Amino acid sequence: MQSQTQTFERMESNVRTYSRSFPVVFKTAKNARLVDEEGREYIDFLAGAGTLNYGHNNPHLKEAMIDYLSTDGVVHGLDMWTQAKRDYFEALEELIFKPRGLDYKVHLPGPTGTNAVEAAIRLARVAKGRHNIVSFTNGFHGVTMGALATTGNRKFREATGGVPTQAASFLPYDGYMGEHTDTLDYFEKLLNDKSGGLDIPAAVIVETVQGEGGINVAGLDWLKRLESICRAHDILLIVDDIQAGCGRTGKFFSFEHAGITPDIVTNSKSLSGFGLPFAHVLMRPELDKWKPGQYNGTFRGFNLAMVTATAALKKYWSNDSFERDVQRKARIVEERFQGIAKRLSDSGKPATERGRGLMRGIDVVDGELADKITATAFERGLIIETSGQDGEVVKCLCPLTITDEDLLEALDILDASVDAVIQGA
Amino acid sequence: MQSQTQTFERMESNVRTYSRSFPVVFKTAKNARLVDEEGREYIDFLAGAGTLNYGHNNPHLKEAMIDYLSTDGVVHGLDMWTQAKRDYFEALEELIFKPRGLDYKVHLPGPTGTNAVEAAIRLARVAKGRHNIVSFTNGFHGVTMGALATTGNRKFREATGGVPTQAASFLPYDGYMGEHTDTLDYFEKLLNDKSGGLDIPAAVIVETVQGEGGINVAGLDWLKRLESICRAHDILLIVDDIQAGCGRTGKFFSFEHAGITPDIVTNSKSLSGFGLPFAHVLMRPELDKWKPGQYNGTFRGFNLAMVTATAALKKYWSNDSFERDVQRKARIVEERFQGIAKRLSDSGKPATERGRGLMRGIDVVDGELADKITATAFERGLIIETSGQDGEVVKCLCPLTITDEDLLEALDILDASVDAVIQGA
Amino acid sequence: MQSQTQTFERMESNVRTYSRSFPVVFKTAKNARLVDEEGREYIDFLAGAGTLNYGHNNPHLKEAMIDYLSTDGVVHGLDMWTQAKRDYFEALEELIFKPRGLDYKVHLPGPTGTNAVEAAIRLARVAKGRHNIVSFTNGFHGVTMGALATTGNRKFREATGGVPTQAASFLPYDGYMGEHTDTLDYFEKLLNDKSGGLDIPAAVIVETVQGEGGINVAGLDWLKRLESICRAHDILLIVDDIQAGCGRTGKFFSFEHAGITPDIVTNSKSLSGFGLPFAHVLMRPELDKWKPGQYNGTFRGFNLAMVTATAALKKYWSNDSFERDVQRKARIVEERFQGIAKRLSDSGKPATERGRGLMRGIDVVDGELADKITATAFERGLIIETSGQDGEVVKCLCPLTITDEDLLEALDILDASVDAVIQGA
Amino acid sequence: MQSQTQTFERMESNVRTYSRSFPVVFKTAKNARLVDEEGREYIDFLAGAGTLNYGHNNPHLKEAMIDYLSTDGVVHGLDMWTQAKRDYFEALEELIFKPRGLDYKVHLPGPTGTNAVEAAIRLARVAKGRHNIVSFTNGFHGVTMGALATTGNRKFREATGGVPTQAASFLPYDGYMGEHTDTLDYFEKLLNDKSGGLDIPAAVIVETVQGEGGINVAGLDWLKRLESICRAHDILLIVDDIQAGCGRTGKFFSFEHAGITPDIVTNSKSLSGFGLPFAHVLMRPELDKWKPGQYNGTFRGFNLAMVTATAALKKYWSNDSFERDVQRKARIVEERFQGIAKRLSDSGKPATERGRGLMRGIDVVDGELADKITATAFERGLIIETSGQDGEVVKCLCPLTITDEDLLEALDILDASVDAVIQGA
Repeated sequence: MQSQTQTFERMESNVRTYSRSFPVVFKTAKNARLVDEEGREYIDFLAGAGTLNYGHNNPHLKEAMIDYLSTDGVVHGLDMWTQAKRDYFEALEELIFKPRGLDYKVHLPGPTGTNAVEAAIRLARVAKGRHNIVSFTNGFHGVTMGALATTGNRKFREATGGVPTQAASFLPYDGYMGEHTDTLDYFEKLLNDKSGGLDIPAAVIVETVQGEGGINVAGLDWLKRLESICRAHDILLIVDDIQAGCGRTGKFFSFEHAGITPDIVTNSKSLSGFGLPFAHVLMRPELDKWKPGQYNGTFRGFNLAMVTATAALKKYWSNDSFERDVQRKARIVEERFQGIAKRLSDSGKPATERGRGLMRGIDVVDGELADKITATAFERGLIIETSGQDGEVVKCLCPLTITDEDLLEALDILDASVDAVIQGA
Repeated sequence: MQSQTQTFERMESNVRTYSRSFPVVFKTAKNARLVDEEGREYIDFLAGAGTLNYGHNNPHLKEAMIDYLSTDGVVHGLDMWTQAKRDYFEALEELIFKPRGLDYKVHLPGPTGTNAVEAAIRLARVAKGRHNIVSFTNGFHGVTMGALATTGNRKFREATGGVPTQAASFLPYDGYMGEHTDTLDYFEKLLNDKSGGLDIPAAVIVETVQGEGGINVAGLDWLKRLESICRAHDILLIVDDIQAGCGRTGKFFSFEHAGITPDIVTNSKSLSGFGLPFAHVLMRPELDKWKPGQYNGTFRGFNLAMVTATAALKKYWSNDSFERDVQRKARIVEERFQGIAKRLSDSGKPATERGRGLMRGIDVVDGELADKITATAFERGLIIETSGQDGEVVKCLCPLTITDEDLLEALDILDASVDAVIQGA
Repeated sequence: MQSQTQTFERMESNVRTYSRSFPVVFKTAKNARLVDEEGREYIDFLAGAGTLNYGHNNPHLKEAMIDYLSTDGVVHGLDMWTQAKRDYFEALEELIFKPRGLDYKVHLPGPTGTNAVEAAIRLARVAKGRHNIVSFTNGFHGVTMGALATTGNRKFREATGGVPTQAASFLPYDGYMGEHTDTLDYFEKLLNDKSGGLDIPAAVIVETVQGEGGINVAGLDWLKRLESICRAHDILLIVDDIQAGCGRTGKFFSFEHAGITPDIVTNSKSLSGFGLPFAHVLMRPELDKWKPGQYNGTFRGFNLAMVTATAALKKYWSNDSFERDVQRKARIVEERFQGIAKRLSDSGKPATERGRGLMRGIDVVDGELADKITATAFERGLIIETSGQDGEVVKCLCPLTITDEDLLEALDILDASVDAVIQGA
Repeated sequence: MQSQTQTFERMESNVRTYSRSFPVVFKTAKNARLVDEEGREYIDFLAGAGTLNYGHNNPHLKEAMIDYLSTDGVVHGLDMWTQAKRDYFEALEELIFKPRGLDYKVHLPGPTGTNAVEAAIRLARVAKGRHNIVSFTNGFHGVTMGALATTGNRKFREATGGVPTQAASFLPYDGYMGEHTDTLDYFEKLLNDKSGGLDIPAAVIVETVQGEGGINVAGLDWLKRLESICRAHDILLIVDDIQAGCGRTGKFFSFEHAGITPDIVTNSKSLSGFGLPFAHVLMRPELDKWKPGQYNGTFRGFNLAMVTATAALKKYWSNDSFERDVQRKARIVEERFQGIAKRLSDSGKPATERGRGLMRGIDVVDGELADKITATAFERGLIIETSGQDGEVVKCLCPLTITDEDLLEALDILDASVDAVIQGA
């Protein structure tokens, strides 16, 4: 394999990460299966960290894309109007907004999550005339400097060359202070305290389930109360649905479970459905305080991504069968993960299961233990990653479209890997 | 047309820009021609603001992409290793680095220019342990908060909701203080002055030709001296080649004309060759101070883009015939633009021509005049934009692959549009 | 009185504050008594917000100052060496440091508290190579931009013209989250959490009793644990003893009660003993990372203030009789304040007493009620102010040297004022 | 002397500066003479870096202060009204504002220059709703974090522990780019350039003569044009007259020479006249946007300083005789400095003289040479310091009240010191 990877080792920056966990060269992929250039197959429980909800090379989406290409549809046109964009807007309105009673305008910033977050918090500041943004412990919202201010991870925060981030405040996420403390009590006290040190924020930005932070799940009542507090204090509520959105939790938007309506929503990752870079910011119409061109970027409105995004909406979101199927699979994963957590606990390694929909994790407390499990699983043909501040949570982000066969095989591999680690330890 | 655009008007954020200048709905595109849904054709002198150097739907690149898709090549894999990535690295090394005597490592950040700039300046800060970044008047390097600190445009700078950018200093670009002042004298004086207020920068970031800033061309001696000053003061030199790179100026890298070797280079826009979001940061190997994962992003290493980027390198950069052809066309544009500038000047509207390669502009001094010219040209079937602080420069960013017929037709349209404006005024 | 105050109304900025509560023109003052130009006397329970611990025009200190002036001692000499400075250093060492087992070097910054705080936090950053400073809810550490980052009061924080403060994080002070929550659990959790959003701080800055914040008293165990946490995480502990120091709590340094040893201490306010501007920063010798002249200011080392400061140390701190007398008076105030709080509570206005030494307050919950009480007291000849985020705490900061007669008279006035308010309401 | 200074060496922070140049212990001082504890006399050409314009222990001022103390006048009263404050305001209005046709309101911030600057720039931001402040190369405006943003000196700027200053931009001071370039052309071009990178500032802060920066003198036309530019662009003009004010340049305010009227003025240093900490901010009445208490500080309105300040105004500013005497002495110094510069130049060490009033310097180009001259002068009984980015300017800041005898003796010492250095070199 030396010959296969030396180009990377010579030419790729040290910053590379995932190839350290999975040091093979991949060649092809279909739905939940990746194949390396030696022909070995792997089931993919990482799926682009939540980017491939509809699987690798989804045939419906691929067909739409190739059709578009074959007729020389406009691929790149900055933010000019195209048929592809109109189709996307219309599908979004008909299939997503209307059935959910939502009314949003759409901003297409640069095609990445961090860019959507930068646009969202900047819009909030402009709309409210305040600079502060509240985010939460263990939150991840991107690494460009504006977004980084709201991202808790020290790995990134300490790599700014000493420049402190600005204009954001962290508050404890749901459950952060133990099960008997409602962390929103602290937020509300600070808001009402004229000398508590919290500048009244323009907005709160929150993930309903924290992916990178360790599959931490905000309670539905907590989310409702957060919305109420924001309304009471004239603060905008931004739900960052970049990882949890597009069906991952069993609903198109992860906040649907709580029955709340954010003022601003960010989506990316699985939005194109095909792994193409794409992102949008949704905003209540009255918040659209942008003047022409105040936020730009070359790749805003990437037409190929809008073509596949439209196809994905039509294929999976025309009725609720896809949602129900995700929830069905979620219960399978939940049950199996609970079993694993129990076996780990019984063997003296305390572990717990948590998640919402197919965004699930097993918190094994110890990052090294989690690494052993995922490394063992990789040897056995399962790509699965960890998250959490110390990488202590083994997480499932499998394609929502995974076949039951692959899902069960993957869970069997994970089961066996955990057992091997328990016995080997 | 009301019926065709009302979806956009209802659903798209006010932030939209290019659709205001070109308010039609585009459908297809090939090389230098765009077609709207009424079937009307336009020659494209904007080309994605420099993103489509190889034209719309370049058949060689499209073929490579469809081949890759048809075999279910990995489209999205975070930064995992793929054959597509290795092919790209190898083509970059063989076709670009080696012939030019360059030795760089490659960082694939998020697939946008602003993301590449954020990564580049952050790396510079980490490598040098200093916070300041020097950029230049009229420079444009993106709008996420880290990059925005180096971008001169007030439209963006005033839309942060009041948050000041940090850790960057603007200095006058070549020619900014008139032809008799070498603006680098000021830079050098500040560096040597212990109380001049300039924090010794980690890096200078510069465009060799400023695109958004108004097709301002840095002299080759000025660039050489800038490199010398950076070397003398242990400051890194970052060339932002996002718009001017990939052949736009007649060389693959725009800095080749000056014979300088930047420490760090950013590329994006035309890097994929097909309008796909893609960006990389090149760095001298000894500057690769990143630790694993210190800078991330979901869409880093977008395989489809690497497939088309590789195809573009192989098609256009295996020998110097493409470069020579670009230079040939550049001379045609230069001559015609000089003619236009002369006619404008003769009619009492002082105008000058400038540029390098096929990055050329006519400075008509007055933004309203420039708007009239481009609006008239659009009516006649030419998409052409302005740049400069007041939109006073009519600019050519046509595909480098434009046919001579289209090039001459476009120049004829521009000629006629200018004449119409002269006569109408 | 119109004629007496119209000059102020015409010429003094709207920013003025205390003259709004006490709108008379004062002329003379002695120990705890102020006299206005109509000859009316007031007992002073504000005492320069803790600046006049030894009373107005303390005769011992005044004599020292006049003696110094009469021999043409150097009044102003920047930071040059003078006999007055040496005398001060030696008194500090002999009377304060040695008996308490302390070993500090002394930095004389500009003669104000905010300046001392700016110097202290900057030194901490330089010494630790980290930018963040942790301060606490309701903390007050000054209003220049560096210090303001650690000050919780929105009144000041919102008057920066939109510029956000930087490089500081607020955490909940002792008791902030209710009596059953040890707020240091949250601090420790954040320190140990790699993605909690807390940048490891260079230092924690804390008041052992928060004066402006509402006479909030940190528990002695909480302070000890705070010191332990700082030691365990290599974080510097700064005690801001600007208001609570110089005997106010019954010890020279307020942190003596807890038996902790801060790495850095700031003092000002009563440090000169005579109301003269003066401040110093004390630091453990190994932290003295300053290079010559890295932090300066014209009035650092104000000799007249060092003359009176030396006289105050010699007069009041040569043995423990002054401390004991302060503690005796503190018990009187405590008892009377408890009585007032009880009467208020009994009348349906819940109130509590708190404090340490002669830094005591009655929290009447309601800022308007507190204002009524202090306004009534002023009519009856007592100058007493409120503090707390809403001005809801009636506070005693009387001279420590107040006579028992004046103390009891003042308490009688306050008693009567409270009763009048209770009855009038 | 070991025994005399060991206390300092043991206990004083390394940050100390002036005692390194003048390592003796001073005891008494009168007008322009300092005496050390060995009884040795020195003529003082430093005078508290411009703080002692009326000399050490000025008898008129001392008398006023002792009278005030002896009647137990209020020394410290926060910002409460006192007779001393009213007297000061009235003297300021009658003796300073009215004769000069000025109309200002007065803000008394903390009693230091940096505090006055922080208050001034914050007020400008609040009044204009913009964050940027323009200051100039080699400017010095204090070292607390807000003021530091406008101070050019790297010694301070690099001692923030890595925290970058924010919300300020440096522009070239008059003459910075050579005598043929009007640096305001650059400022004006940037203001008119929508993408030049200069955020429209709330205010410009400028010293009419830069003291710490090297006795750089702004031309009167340059100052007038600066005022015009500010007016044209709705930018506030702040003159920082902390060092150049109070008669130093031969007028009470240094800007009187140029016939300009700043919107905001800061004074400190010699404002009390006696070396007591004191500062005020003057503002045009319509700019007084402060709300009560938005900017505070314990020692604002130091009554002793107002007593001496009032005495100084009455003694020296009731008519123009003091001004004329300063101008007379200035011509003596100018002539002698020109002679020294000529002798240095003739000996192969190029030197030039410059200044306004009694704020004068000899630029000897080389910091080491300047140090030799001042060290030699100190040996011979003259305290004189350097300024400029490299300490290359030997500067005169003697008391304005210096006797002709002392002035001439000091100049003789300087003459002889320069000659000794020339010969010794």
